[in-house]
Amino acid sequence: MAAHPTIASYLLNRLYQAGVRDIFGVPGDYILRFYQAIESSPIRHIGTTREDTAAFAADAYARCNGLGAMAVTYGVGALSVVNPVAGAYAESSPVVVISGAPGVTEQRDDPLLHHRFGPFRFQREIFERITCAAAVLDDPAIALRQIDRVLDAARRYCKPVYIELPRDQLEVEGFPIPSHPEPAFASDPDSLREAVEETCALLKNAGQPVIVAGLELHRRGLQATLMSLVEQSRFPVAATLTGKSVMGERHPCYLGVYEGALGPAAARERVEQADLLLMLGVTLNDVDLGVYTARLDAQRMVRASQDEVIIHHHRYPRVSLVDYVTALAERLPACAKTQSAFVPAAIGDELPFPQPSTPIRVARLIGRLNAFLEPDMQVVCDTGDCLFAAIDLKVHENTGFLASAYYTTMGFAVPAALGAQIARPDKRAVVLAGDGAFQMTGTELSTIARLGLNAIVIVFNNRGYSTERFILDGPFNDIAEWRFHRLGEVFGPLKGYEVGTEEDFEQALNQAAGETAAASLIEVQLAGDDASPAMRRLGERLGKLI
Amino acid sequence: MAAHPTIASYLLNRLYQAGVRDIFGVPGDYILRFYQAIESSPIRHIGTTREDTAAFAADAYARCNGLGAMAVTYGVGALSVVNPVAGAYAESSPVVVISGAPGVTEQRDDPLLHHRFGPFRFQREIFERITCAAAVLDDPAIALRQIDRVLDAARRYCKPVYIELPRDQLEVEGFPIPSHPEPAFASDPDSLREAVEETCALLKNAGQPVIVAGLELHRRGLQATLMSLVEQSRFPVAATLTGKSVMGERHPCYLGVYEGALGPAAARERVEQADLLLMLGVTLNDVDLGVYTARLDAQRMVRASQDEVIIHHHRYPRVSLVDYVTALAERLPACAKTQSAFVPAAIGDELPFPQPSTPIRVARLIGRLNAFLEPDMQVVCDTGDCLFAAIDLKVHENTGFLASAYYTTMGFAVPAALGAQIARPDKRAVVLAGDGAFQMTGTELSTIARLGLNAIVIVFNNRGYSTERFILDGPFNDIAEWRFHRLGEVFGPLKGYEVGTEEDFEQALNQAAGETAAASLIEVQLAGDDASPAMRRLGERLGKLI
Repeated sequence: MAAHPTIASYLLNRLYQAGVRDIFGVPGDYILRFYQAIESSPIRHIGTTREDTAAFAADAYARCNGLGAMAVTYGVGALSVVNPVAGAYAESSPVVVISGAPGVTEQRDDPLLHHRFGPFRFQREIFERITCAAAVLDDPAIALRQIDRVLDAARRYCKPVYIELPRDQLEVEGFPIPSHPEPAFASDPDSLREAVEETCALLKNAGQPVIVAGLELHRRGLQATLMSLVEQSRFPVAATLTGKSVMGERHPCYLGVYEGALGPAAARERVEQADLLLMLGVTLNDVDLGVYTARLDAQRMVRASQDEVIIHHHRYPRVSLVDYVTALAERLPACAKTQSAFVPAAIGDELPFPQPSTPIRVARLIGRLNAFLEPDMQVVCDTGDCLFAAIDLKVHENTGFLASAYYTTMGFAVPAALGAQIARPDKRAVVLAGDGAFQMTGTELSTIARLGLNAIVIVFNNRGYSTERFILDGPFNDIAEWRFHRLGEVFGPLKGYEVGTEEDFEQALNQAAGETAAASLIEVQLAGDDASPAMRRLGERLGKLI
Repeated sequence: MAAHPTIASYLLNRLYQAGVRDIFGVPGDYILRFYQAIESSPIRHIGTTREDTAAFAADAYARCNGLGAMAVTYGVGALSVVNPVAGAYAESSPVVVISGAPGVTEQRDDPLLHHRFGPFRFQREIFERITCAAAVLDDPAIALRQIDRVLDAARRYCKPVYIELPRDQLEVEGFPIPSHPEPAFASDPDSLREAVEETCALLKNAGQPVIVAGLELHRRGLQATLMSLVEQSRFPVAATLTGKSVMGERHPCYLGVYEGALGPAAARERVEQADLLLMLGVTLNDVDLGVYTARLDAQRMVRASQDEVIIHHHRYPRVSLVDYVTALAERLPACAKTQSAFVPAAIGDELPFPQPSTPIRVARLIGRLNAFLEPDMQVVCDTGDCLFAAIDLKVHENTGFLASAYYTTMGFAVPAALGAQIARPDKRAVVLAGDGAFQMTGTELSTIARLGLNAIVIVFNNRGYSTERFILDGPFNDIAEWRFHRLGEVFGPLKGYEVGTEEDFEQALNQAAGETAAASLIEVQLAGDDASPAMRRLGERLGKLI
């Protein structure tokens, strides 16, 4: 009789089948044997300097690849990733967290083993609050089935999951209970038909319909379906900030980011004056609603979210986003008046770049990047003014922009760029990060450098926590001054540039672009009064709330 | 009628009364108003680059000062400190975690506010698993009482506590319900008397009694009582690794660290051959028991832990450690034969330091540090070989050595040195960290530099996760190469040195010592085969367990 697979090999196989080619993480004694198992599998281990940066990397990898994975030791490792995994949950990114643990027999007498902080079950209980499924593989009779269940949940709900692996179970053979996956969510056919028909009837009568495209379209892989819908109808499309790059932003139908009063005026006008808004996969969070400055009238709205369509004030409860958008794209030719192509504002500033002897400002920098970006680049953006400034950035291809735009955790970008470039080696990462965010996790750039990846990191140095300065300022928003551009002295290969003028930025950007075999860091010295218009508006708005 | 205190001012007052002079943390919009309140209080805010390093700093501050505090924003801030707070729980360090939160009125309709990852209560539920008391101050009628209860618990149990502060409650007046503190734990007088008498009877008959002093003596502030006991009896004392520096390590009665087969042979012999072992405040964890290589016979043991004394195989359940050790110190002259002074092995190596043209090795480095250390220095040690090597280090004064020796989280030392030097400005921090640990949190040195603190950081560069190499090696234990000594290029003031020989180390150490106004970093290039004897033994032992 053929041997059954061991628990570790089964887990690695299942991950591989699901498209996972890289596992991020830091080793430790409770997970060491699993690391050894990774070495003898076709999956690669990507070591990071810290555990939380491994989780950010796995999150970005999941956004690019459909599933990401990381492996850490018990306690000190797993508890270090609670924040980034909560962020992956908040932003619907399917990350598989694999934590080692003391062996089942080691745990039996409840001993005070190192890395322990409470009852052994507490770690699982913590992760149950930030994942959609959790399993402790302490019973070979059900371990393989648990692996299937948890990985299914990650893909079904696009959320992180937690797998705890007691170290004496790795090489135990699991019992292959036939897998009974939960039936996929099925739309109710009558509800689906009625919802699509009602939408079509509204579209026939609409003069100025506009699509607002959100995060869930990314996560459900509906970018191409959205494009088919747009190509047929020529409806103009705005993206939410969390949905940014759900379609290529150079498309003639793309309006820009809609974010209520915080976003650009042109997109806002089109969205708020539309007589029919098709809100596809939009989550109504405070960021995307411009801290509740959005003026959206339910009477003019059709909203399709994960499992539900809402038209005006009535609901179709069992209609999946995928089915609805797909059906709508099919029915569209029959029901929509094709709109004339919308002509978006030209990309780029009026003045040529660089202007001589001119201090560089955020808006001009973004304008320059718009001319610089190529289809084989992806932008990874941290939380801070660079995120608000990036509203005006136009990436070429869908999913070419990654950020923690709703959970807004600082320190996302550099490690996420590592994950994104590992997932898509053909896309060069352009990283935007503030000085405060970079101080949190920027040294993960050493892993990017070590692997020979050629990310270009632009540090927006505005000397402190600028977003907070606009909400409520005080000495607590000051931070240490770093000479970020000198970081290549510490690790590398990493070229550094410090720029204060447009000419210097131009030169540094061109040199960085030419340096295709190594990472570059451009530290941009910004004037104290230089902030994106969106951040000023945000600061005023949030200042009233605190 | 006089106004009642606001919730924020009451909390800050209570912290101040409890000795807290500094609060560590990173601001964020849900905690900004509290930061403003700190500014107008006599408490100082110490900004760090990340939230987890703020927690490590607060942990060290608590170890030095009796209570530490930190303040962070909701979600992204609080969830970033789960690992260090769990470590403070595991190692009994009373850290007050103050987390901002959306206002009570903001939470009412359950909106999707930024930094949110699940139901608002989940954050408290996570912290309930890593703290001994938690409160959400959402009701002014009981908020002041909750503050008292939680701060009492931190001091009583020497564990972290959690306070969540909805941002619209800060300036609300709290209702001053008279505080009814839980009655302090009181020893049962009969049990106490009997336990002490039985101990005395055993001591009268003992030929070679030895004290093993542990972590709980630190946490209960019993260092002076231990010293009185030792001065009267001249009993030799060994410390556990987690108890290290519970007494000054230059005392003639000090044997060194006892850690089973992993620790030095001389101390082991004395402890394991004693006919009576007084185990005072020792926790029986795997680290202190030398991964269960300790050979300790219950029939020769008296064990006093937090609320219980165990003699041989019987227990005195309601006897507090404080009462027992105090009573024993009082009774001792009447019951113990005074031992002749134990003569510990001479400190320092046989060969003078430095030897010309000799590559520096860990054991010689520790020997040199023993000559270098002064009473006005404190050693802060990270997890890794430096921790095992530091077993042989002899600090001058009690609590002069700080480490995460049981929870063994990496990245503890640099941020903990910040907290320790803030708590004790008169003690210069000497930091020992491996290259892997330093890559995790070493950039917090920028805060040390910014504040003009003069820590001396020694990086043991053995190129990878060496402890794990001894357990199970593979490419996963390799890490990026950093030129640590060049870090002063990025922030400062920070002097850097790279040394490979004894002569270079000598020179760097002397220069760093002379540089009393700024921090220094000495990167020590270690040979691949150079590991402390304790780490070799540990690796062999743990290699069998994984």
